[in-house]
Amino acid sequence: MELYETLSIRRSVRKFSDRMIAPEILERVLDAGRLAPSAVNLQPWKFMVIRSPETRRALVECTRGGKQAHLAMGDLCIVACGHEEDCYQRQGNYMKSFAMDVAIALDHMMLAAAAEGLGTCWIGAFNEEAVKELLQIPNPWRVVGMTPLGYPAESPPFRGRKGMQEIVCYEKWEE
Amino acid sequence: MELYETLSIRRSVRKFSDRMIAPEILERVLDAGRLAPSAVNLQPWKFMVIRSPETRRALVECTRGGKQAHLAMGDLCIVACGHEEDCYQRQGNYMKSFAMDVAIALDHMMLAAAAEGLGTCWIGAFNEEAVKELLQIPNPWRVVGMTPLGYPAESPPFRGRKGMQEIVCYEKWEE
Repeated sequence: MELYETLSIRRSVRKFSDRMIAPEILERVLDAGRLAPSAVNLQPWKFMVIRSPETRRALVECTRGGKQAHLAMGDLCIVACGHEEDCYQRQGNYMKSFAMDVAIALDHMMLAAAAEGLGTCWIGAFNEEAVKELLQIPNPWRVVGMTPLGYPAESPPFRGRKGMQEIVCYEKWEE
Repeated sequence: MELYETLSIRRSVRKFSDRMIAPEILERVLDAGRLAPSAVNLQPWKFMVIRSPETRRALVECTRGGKQAHLAMGDLCIVACGHEEDCYQRQGNYMKSFAMDVAIALDHMMLAAAAEGLGTCWIGAFNEEAVKELLQIPNPWRVVGMTPLGYPAESPPFRGRKGMQEIVCYEKWEE
């Protein structure tokens, strides 16, 4: 799919069919993340692919209020992790790069998924400690985000965006 | 350009020609960022577009060791900022979302740039306080990343990536 079309059709999908994803399609989606850029090309990431219904139901319990039920829908879910030490330590001279690096890589997987006719939904409202305990993710790995991945059973509308004038300024700062 | 092709040809470009970017092309690049997803759709971002050679040379001085000279090359540079308060406050229950949100939006601009035949280079090695003072960026805005934007005067090689087995695991955690 054309880049600009992909950027404009991607939505957060919260209803999925049970249809399985063909291995070669999953491979292309994961590879889109693998090829993503990262600070100093350190690639401080690991992606867990989980199909077990039991594990996924337990993951839902780790989300805020246990309410992100769509994490257990669709064919599988991806848990995106970042390495807190083997990443660039002075991004902007005030933060580590792992969360940004992993965010971009997971986002590239989500763009690939959209191009493949698959749905995703970034889940950020979760208790990291509970997820790490459930999946036995060791330090210094951090859980950055999670998404279900599967064929959509809904077509969510575009939620709108701020206008260009509100988010871009030229030469000088403007609020 | 096709999505997968765009994801595979994007490079960090550090040499640029002086060729100007047509207004409609710059508009498409900025719009790719404007349409990006963000936590709770809060869009906690502002992008400064700077062409002034004087300001850009001063920005280079704010980079680590004053060495990121390519920030002043090409037609213009973009300074990507995030709002620390009007963003999701509990990403993973341990961090604010602004850096991840802005990273994804700036990355989408960089993908659009690649599709338009333009070059970019994420600059993360800078002193945020110095950039904020130079550009008079008020709190609670944070500077997340910067990039030059222009027509490439080099074709950087692919820098390689980790193999799939190293970055993906199935069902259970594996190092």
